[in-house]
Amino acid sequence: MSNSIEISIPNCIDQFAEHYSPSPHDEDKMRFVIAASEASLKWGLGGPFAAAIFRLDNHQLVSAGVNLIINQGLSILHAEVVAIMRAQRLLGTYDLGDGKLPPMALVTSTEPCTMCLGATHWSGISKVVSGATDADANSIGFDEGPKPDDWAKALRERGIEVKTEVLRGAAIDVLKKYQTLGGNIYNSLRNTQ
Amino acid sequence: MSNSIEISIPNCIDQFAEHYSPSPHDEDKMRFVIAASEASLKWGLGGPFAAAIFRLDNHQLVSAGVNLIINQGLSILHAEVVAIMRAQRLLGTYDLGDGKLPPMALVTSTEPCTMCLGATHWSGISKVVSGATDADANSIGFDEGPKPDDWAKALRERGIEVKTEVLRGAAIDVLKKYQTLGGNIYNSLRNTQ
Repeated sequence: MSNSIEISIPNCIDQFAEHYSPSPHDEDKMRFVIAASEASLKWGLGGPFAAAIFRLDNHQLVSAGVNLIINQGLSILHAEVVAIMRAQRLLGTYDLGDGKLPPMALVTSTEPCTMCLGATHWSGISKVVSGATDADANSIGFDEGPKPDDWAKALRERGIEVKTEVLRGAAIDVLKKYQTLGGNIYNSLRNTQ
Repeated sequence: MSNSIEISIPNCIDQFAEHYSPSPHDEDKMRFVIAASEASLKWGLGGPFAAAIFRLDNHQLVSAGVNLIINQGLSILHAEVVAIMRAQRLLGTYDLGDGKLPPMALVTSTEPCTMCLGATHWSGISKVVSGATDADANSIGFDEGPKPDDWAKALRERGIEVKTEVLRGAAIDVLKKYQTLGGNIYNSLRNTQ
């Protein structure tokens, strides 16, 4: 068995990230993330999802991710997980909320599934901004998994600021485009039932 | 920014895995996993948790993981996530339930946190066997995150068999030993509140 797991991050992601101009507005950060999710439709790396981490002091982009499940053969690689791993490696810490770094926001084109909800909780992120909802992702065939009734409240109780449904309509448009293009709905559980 | 993320799997894990003899009994698989969690206390790679994936046809070990958060600097690397990633890379698929492979079980020394619950849901695993509970992990200071009230039921509804509290006492003993040794409770949210 191999003693390392290498995850390659296709260059197209960081090339696309050059389009982002730092802005204090959640809507501007979300506009960039939704544009990345739309760009990912032609990259064909995985599901129609993008996420990015931004510093909340100067609003610069720390790391960007898109869903890499199909490209990298790992079901863990949701956009949020890719962005979190990249930020932690770049900054040299498993805890983005360690008090030495500025607070950071995770902006994601669709609200975190169960896995990404937990990944956010462990990451040290201070704020989550999401676009489309679980219901929107479910409506094109995904199963976002078992979450508590009020996931946003559960994060807030842990000191994480949460803002949902930011530019939701634009985020939904990308999901629908993926469905129209016949994109892979890779949740095996749903497909085999 | 680096365009790849490399996760090194320390050799001690696979050297330890040679101790496992295939057995059809959940308790035997759990005994091996709890022993791995105990061995991990001296390896110092992360929290006191281990997990492994087994084929359910011949009961052979597919992949083993321990918590590598501190060693690898990534909050994503819970034992379950490490085992799932290793199995998927070894078998060349992001879906362990794709119908071409035998059904597989994830055996974990402590029940899946929110992130690992979601990771299990996406992985294609057919069965989950857990030892210690969330309450046991919380009692030594961790915060396992927001989960639905009945996480086992939520997985069962998705066709995944779940067996909890298998050798729970032995699994708790390892958690307590970690606490006695002054192990790092790395959930920043709890620590900063």
